[in-house]
Amino acid sequence: MPGQSVGVVHSQRAHFAQPLALRSGGVLPAYDLVYETYGALNAAKSNAILVCHALSGHHHVAGHYADQPGNIGWWDNLIGPGRPLDTDRYFIVGVNNLGGCHGSTGPSTLNPASGKPWGADFPLVAVVDWVHAQARLADLLGIDAWAVVMGGSLGGMQALRWSVTYPERIRNAIVIAAAPKLSAQNIAFNDVARQAILTDPDFHGGHYYEHHTRPTRGLRLARMLGHITYLSDDQMGEKFGRELKNGSFTFDFDVEFEVESYLRYQGDKFAGIFDANTYLLMTKALDYFDPARMDDGDLTATMARSTANFLIASFTTDWRFTPARSKEIVAALLANGRNVSYAEIDLNFGHDSFLMADAHYHGVIDAWLRNITL
Amino acid sequence: MPGQSVGVVHSQRAHFAQPLALRSGGVLPAYDLVYETYGALNAAKSNAILVCHALSGHHHVAGHYADQPGNIGWWDNLIGPGRPLDTDRYFIVGVNNLGGCHGSTGPSTLNPASGKPWGADFPLVAVVDWVHAQARLADLLGIDAWAVVMGGSLGGMQALRWSVTYPERIRNAIVIAAAPKLSAQNIAFNDVARQAILTDPDFHGGHYYEHHTRPTRGLRLARMLGHITYLSDDQMGEKFGRELKNGSFTFDFDVEFEVESYLRYQGDKFAGIFDANTYLLMTKALDYFDPARMDDGDLTATMARSTANFLIASFTTDWRFTPARSKEIVAALLANGRNVSYAEIDLNFGHDSFLMADAHYHGVIDAWLRNITL
Repeated sequence: MPGQSVGVVHSQRAHFAQPLALRSGGVLPAYDLVYETYGALNAAKSNAILVCHALSGHHHVAGHYADQPGNIGWWDNLIGPGRPLDTDRYFIVGVNNLGGCHGSTGPSTLNPASGKPWGADFPLVAVVDWVHAQARLADLLGIDAWAVVMGGSLGGMQALRWSVTYPERIRNAIVIAAAPKLSAQNIAFNDVARQAILTDPDFHGGHYYEHHTRPTRGLRLARMLGHITYLSDDQMGEKFGRELKNGSFTFDFDVEFEVESYLRYQGDKFAGIFDANTYLLMTKALDYFDPARMDDGDLTATMARSTANFLIASFTTDWRFTPARSKEIVAALLANGRNVSYAEIDLNFGHDSFLMADAHYHGVIDAWLRNITL
Repeated sequence: MPGQSVGVVHSQRAHFAQPLALRSGGVLPAYDLVYETYGALNAAKSNAILVCHALSGHHHVAGHYADQPGNIGWWDNLIGPGRPLDTDRYFIVGVNNLGGCHGSTGPSTLNPASGKPWGADFPLVAVVDWVHAQARLADLLGIDAWAVVMGGSLGGMQALRWSVTYPERIRNAIVIAAAPKLSAQNIAFNDVARQAILTDPDFHGGHYYEHHTRPTRGLRLARMLGHITYLSDDQMGEKFGRELKNGSFTFDFDVEFEVESYLRYQGDKFAGIFDANTYLLMTKALDYFDPARMDDGDLTATMARSTANFLIASFTTDWRFTPARSKEIVAALLANGRNVSYAEIDLNFGHDSFLMADAHYHGVIDAWLRNITL
């Protein structure tokens, strides 16, 4: 991996006292966002990049904390001096979205009205709500228009929403491994994950904090299922195949196959740290995402609202959001004569490919970014 | 649908007092099998077809019970006078496999040693164990050799296993929507389903019968997940799309999308009637299935043991066991110069296609069967 990490970073917190009207019709009276920045904003304030996170992501996108050298940002491989998101050139912002569980206001933070964690009383949010909240953060940082808004998966959907909601505030968008809306199968997987959490006896209707417990069984199942959809069938085959943990069948329900070991480990790890209410909320935001809904399903009409230049990237082995889904966005942009580049990248990591440090993939982003005007 | 149903049928029970040595190394001291037969065994005893069931199937393959006119066999559309499995020509046998929950000895039947349901003490079984048990049923019925052993999915795997375990007792095999072994992804889905059941607090280590409860939460999740893998992405899209139950988002965790309504209904229905221990056992039998294991993974060597004629059928939209998986079996048979027909059928119902009454699909089976010698 060429270039360097940004090294030691620290997170910041901003309080927003102005109420935020939500897509659901509800109102969030006030909220905090935690965020990180890397690089320096130039005098023209024209070099700012917003990196949006996906389902389980957060504001810690690059670098590490001084007291936690092993806690490296989730897209560190892309960001830093000499990397595609070059911190010598760009001012990069990562933010934990509303409803998250990494410091921003969400189900696990205190509800001022009750003095207890919000829990199930935290309103369900939509991608557009995040975009509005991020716009206020941009105001705070003195950024009138982003040079780039970008992200993978649900992060890419935020970039897409930015382009149609605040076209004057985004000059370029990078949308990776995303879709203009979820398919029935996508929603179905999300609903099984949600039902696992909602029916966990430790869920307590979303107010588990007060019961000093957590619905770890349900969250673990949700994450195990998620991992199957993030990886490609081929990759799972190559990585695990039918390899047995102990060399032979044990004829019980302990781990027999290596793939079981992997999934259970991933499920346990995630269930130990992530907040179940945030998981529910994030999957709902995915389900609700459908910007063309405001134009009666006509994505071309919706993308006509956008004026940004686009880089759309997909991965050949991503069966969650296939290349065909990215091409729907490309077609809608082309129908409007918009400036759009499309890259279908042959990587074997399924949906998770967007997180990988692949030279060709990063080269595509790097080359495209070198052509934008700051 | 041409032809007629077999009409009123009744199930029978056979007791086998001879111990059955299992693949796991365990022994089942004695067991019962419930079964049904349709049509008449000819004098030469050469017209018998064994229909093997899949994960959630049973012995009630065709017709209905006199007192339950709505309880129609799961493959009724294929069986009866004038149907591909013509009861004027064949003697057809359906059997509930060992470990099942429809009358044959299994986790929910009484363990003679304890006087209580077997529960978790029922041994895990492999496909080969079912084949041995079915062979004893054939002995009982006076059938030296089956004209055909057939099935879809896990049922097809039994037909495959029959052909290499008792080559002298099976003249023809029909293997539909199956695979020579599960992929890592297949196993992964099964493991999430199992973990849902095993971690349900009502599972009680598999001895829930004694606690007068059932792990319905886990079983419901397992079935919801299963249904996603049985249907094709396209079919889900066409059937449900993003249709909303109430026309607009409700921003809560009740059913919002039609696909959620469908999945939860299927999950609830199944969880109300099926036994969770049987579900666990069936998924393990699927995972263990890998007949080439006895030949160090060389499927061609394994299929050399078989002398049957084969019809292998797969479905274009089946992403659980894709056509490529069926072709692995075809290739291994061809490499041995065996008589094999292969049909890749364009049906939009995913893995579930094998249960559908499609004229072309049934025509393929019908035409192939007309060419076998009784």
